[in-house]
Amino acid sequence: MKLTILIHCPDQSGIIRSVTTFIHQQEGNVVYLDQHVDKQAGVFFMRLQSEFEKEIVLDGFKTEFDATLAKEFNMEWDAYLEGYKPKMAIFVSKYNHCLYDLLSRFKSGELLVDIPFILSNHQDLAYVAEQFKIPFYHVPVTKETKENAEAEQLKLLKEHQVDFIVLARYMQIISPRLIDTYPQKIINIHHSFLPAFVGAKPYHAAFERGVKIIGATSHYVTEDLDAGPIIEQDVTAVSHSHSIKDFIAKGKDLERIVLSRAVQLHVARKTMVYNNKTVIFS
Amino acid sequence: MKLTILIHCPDQSGIIRSVTTFIHQQEGNVVYLDQHVDKQAGVFFMRLQSEFEKEIVLDGFKTEFDATLAKEFNMEWDAYLEGYKPKMAIFVSKYNHCLYDLLSRFKSGELLVDIPFILSNHQDLAYVAEQFKIPFYHVPVTKETKENAEAEQLKLLKEHQVDFIVLARYMQIISPRLIDTYPQKIINIHHSFLPAFVGAKPYHAAFERGVKIIGATSHYVTEDLDAGPIIEQDVTAVSHSHSIKDFIAKGKDLERIVLSRAVQLHVARKTMVYNNKTVIFS
Amino acid sequence: MKLTILIHCPDQSGIIRSVTTFIHQQEGNVVYLDQHVDKQAGVFFMRLQSEFEKEIVLDGFKTEFDATLAKEFNMEWDAYLEGYKPKMAIFVSKYNHCLYDLLSRFKSGELLVDIPFILSNHQDLAYVAEQFKIPFYHVPVTKETKENAEAEQLKLLKEHQVDFIVLARYMQIISPRLIDTYPQKIINIHHSFLPAFVGAKPYHAAFERGVKIIGATSHYVTEDLDAGPIIEQDVTAVSHSHSIKDFIAKGKDLERIVLSRAVQLHVARKTMVYNNKTVIFS
Amino acid sequence: MKLTILIHCPDQSGIIRSVTTFIHQQEGNVVYLDQHVDKQAGVFFMRLQSEFEKEIVLDGFKTEFDATLAKEFNMEWDAYLEGYKPKMAIFVSKYNHCLYDLLSRFKSGELLVDIPFILSNHQDLAYVAEQFKIPFYHVPVTKETKENAEAEQLKLLKEHQVDFIVLARYMQIISPRLIDTYPQKIINIHHSFLPAFVGAKPYHAAFERGVKIIGATSHYVTEDLDAGPIIEQDVTAVSHSHSIKDFIAKGKDLERIVLSRAVQLHVARKTMVYNNKTVIFS
Repeated sequence: MKLTILIHCPDQSGIIRSVTTFIHQQEGNVVYLDQHVDKQAGVFFMRLQSEFEKEIVLDGFKTEFDATLAKEFNMEWDAYLEGYKPKMAIFVSKYNHCLYDLLSRFKSGELLVDIPFILSNHQDLAYVAEQFKIPFYHVPVTKETKENAEAEQLKLLKEHQVDFIVLARYMQIISPRLIDTYPQKIINIHHSFLPAFVGAKPYHAAFERGVKIIGATSHYVTEDLDAGPIIEQDVTAVSHSHSIKDFIAKGKDLERIVLSRAVQLHVARKTMVYNNKTVIFS
Repeated sequence: MKLTILIHCPDQSGIIRSVTTFIHQQEGNVVYLDQHVDKQAGVFFMRLQSEFEKEIVLDGFKTEFDATLAKEFNMEWDAYLEGYKPKMAIFVSKYNHCLYDLLSRFKSGELLVDIPFILSNHQDLAYVAEQFKIPFYHVPVTKETKENAEAEQLKLLKEHQVDFIVLARYMQIISPRLIDTYPQKIINIHHSFLPAFVGAKPYHAAFERGVKIIGATSHYVTEDLDAGPIIEQDVTAVSHSHSIKDFIAKGKDLERIVLSRAVQLHVARKTMVYNNKTVIFS
Repeated sequence: MKLTILIHCPDQSGIIRSVTTFIHQQEGNVVYLDQHVDKQAGVFFMRLQSEFEKEIVLDGFKTEFDATLAKEFNMEWDAYLEGYKPKMAIFVSKYNHCLYDLLSRFKSGELLVDIPFILSNHQDLAYVAEQFKIPFYHVPVTKETKENAEAEQLKLLKEHQVDFIVLARYMQIISPRLIDTYPQKIINIHHSFLPAFVGAKPYHAAFERGVKIIGATSHYVTEDLDAGPIIEQDVTAVSHSHSIKDFIAKGKDLERIVLSRAVQLHVARKTMVYNNKTVIFS
Repeated sequence: MKLTILIHCPDQSGIIRSVTTFIHQQEGNVVYLDQHVDKQAGVFFMRLQSEFEKEIVLDGFKTEFDATLAKEFNMEWDAYLEGYKPKMAIFVSKYNHCLYDLLSRFKSGELLVDIPFILSNHQDLAYVAEQFKIPFYHVPVTKETKENAEAEQLKLLKEHQVDFIVLARYMQIISPRLIDTYPQKIINIHHSFLPAFVGAKPYHAAFERGVKIIGATSHYVTEDLDAGPIIEQDVTAVSHSHSIKDFIAKGKDLERIVLSRAVQLHVARKTMVYNNKTVIFS
């Protein structure tokens, strides 16, 4: 069995030695260890994977780890057994490119998740859900219905025991209630190289400014619009010869790939958040 | 003889045909032509190079072109004979990386300019000027002396008939008077991916925001700080494991290369400015 | 109506002037012109787009152009009216990532083609064709059946009046007969940065060599394996920490995007082939 | 005091725990740990940095480490105290761009080495050595003098106690004797994206092949030409519009940066070699 542990705690002497010794006492073998110290903040981060020949009971392991180490070092931590497929809900509006990208990776076995449903404020992409035989919920959002829509979203998420949400170009602002219920569990793709061009119509703004490179940014959603911890960014060159339409077409390719990479990092438990920034393990 | 013509004018039918016919009548042969239409603005841009077997008198050519074509099509335009080395002044403060990069390209014959002088508000880089045997002027700038300093700068620029100025990490704000005297002839390097992180300490701001990519931007200087027409940009990946010091070190490599590319484009007359944006010819 | 003309011919004086004058005589307006001279080979290349207010009869235009210009300048050339959707056949084996990418772009209207059928030597991807409701032909290929399979392929291609073929990770070698029938009309994606790692298992070879960057290459198929004219290439960074499995996963993302870009360039008639190299217009 | 330890050994259980425990017993504090397992080869790699409040005697530490750990785990390893500046000899021929790049980084304090001398088979770059006041040795190499030249090189390297050699576009083949004396201590820059275009004139070969991307590769020199362990690679886009001269100019910028990065990685002791491949620590 393979176990992944993520830890962050105040930086101090002896953490690696203590954790690897603990794993040894549990008859495990460390097969991967990556750590990082944020010297400014004085915080230690570690991702560690170990293999066990015997069966591990996750709850028992956690209780033991808590008692032996977590309290002593004042750790925030969690552990995951290999094999569990997290439940990922996808929210979309009208653009299909990110949705198709996620679903084709899902279908080919690249993306190890379950997808209980796709949710949209529009009917437009129902046909994509149909193609891939995934339940599709149409939850319209208007000023008047916003609160009800939110309640319905939360109900669906709970019913399906959703672990995390991917906003695959879902063009609505997410409410604080939803964010609080899924902290660091809502992944958005913003179609600019943040923090440049926050908000609506970033390609138009980029075109207006005459930039020579455009980008896309995937981040965890927080209450500040487009200001959450960045998971992944990428860019591509543009020139004066490109129209706004070209920016949008080139941007779509970035959005696809940047969102997919961010989702993969999240699913592989390679992301940790601290001080509105991410540590991304190798 | 080789002649380069740069034109922009209201978009209309027949420009390419008329210009190529004119070149033909002058017994020239078109060896390169690149054009661009900004459809939003309704403006036509063209860069054209032609070869002449006979000797061309630039002034005569210009008068003829003006009378025959420029008025009819309402062109803003200019023509340059191959071989003239523009006079480039370099302004620096204390960082030597961009200066060394420019001077080593100059020395190896990659950068076809004359460098009448290097100017700085500090003494620190006098030794580099000395290494390359280029005159160095120390013009200190304080609140009190700013106006005098400016006058001295203008005097030096005129005396040496400087064609354009490169701010190779010159950390002072350029005055409107200097900008007006050298419109679209002052090239700056800003150490961020503009328009993100305008102003001072962009690497610190980028670190604070937790971006995964940092950049550098070279642009023509206008009165709005860091908001002039962008000539060239480039980026490099960073991660949580990089400190601000690492950002700065990686950024220096970007600054070097982005500034050099922008200077090369300017010297090769491949840049045109319109509506605070650049057209960069191939 | 919008007309795109592609020309290559021996480099000589007066081509641009003559062609733009011809367009003018036909009451057209040049809206785009890009040209290139291969000085080594002495060949001139041009892509030109013009708009006509009156209706153009393509055949008549071509006859006129041939008589007036093409013979004089010894041109190889062709002209295309906007609006025609080329018929694109897709050949696949067992990998679905490139196929999904092409079909999702097709479905979203990004890729302006008709897709008469998908052909494979395996049954594995029939379900994808089914999802997108595109005819799927299973044509198995073994040593013994190779010739028959080829005949069947050619029959299908002719029946459906296919304009060009995309090998979306079709793992079979294409026969000279097929290549001769569709010269510069078969686009392949090779999963390496050619000319490095020609042939089978390039990711394994790249891993073995310890490269720090891997790539993908899209090219027109010629009789020399993986040696045809390159249309598009892209790369991504790898490190010692990546396994062959990681190389393959990262590579798939490259393959998708590089093949799609090449197909888009071909469809937009932005590619010309000469001396086993491509000119790619902007 | 800060100590860096580099280890590789057969992969086995308990290495991290044992080493971190040893550091603890020596009253050190682990401040950085990065490890990698090559599963195919069954080899474990680790780079570890620790801080000590007390003074460390390097020889004593090494003896202790050897006795306690290195034998048990069958380690190849070494340890370095912070502060030592390795002695770097630079070999050049006639191109100055890599030399200028290295020397300007050296001069600005970016590159923490001593440079006892620059050696060349030509006189051409003596002026650069002069500019930076570094001894310059002219050791001509012809078929007849090759053996003598080599002896002179070795003599100079020993006299100056050189730690490693940088071939900054030194166009001569290095003899086995020199390679054996400085194993994994000679860094070369090859002006192509290896393994494509091994040998002489790679830019010409790349131009001939019509590639859309060119590269540069820095590697440790082994007896097989251009086939040593790769430290760093980078690439840049090219197009049909670029001449061989353009390839060379763009390539120079790659060569500069790729060689500098490789040298920095070597100096920071972030490289390990195994099976003709490198592990590059973060």
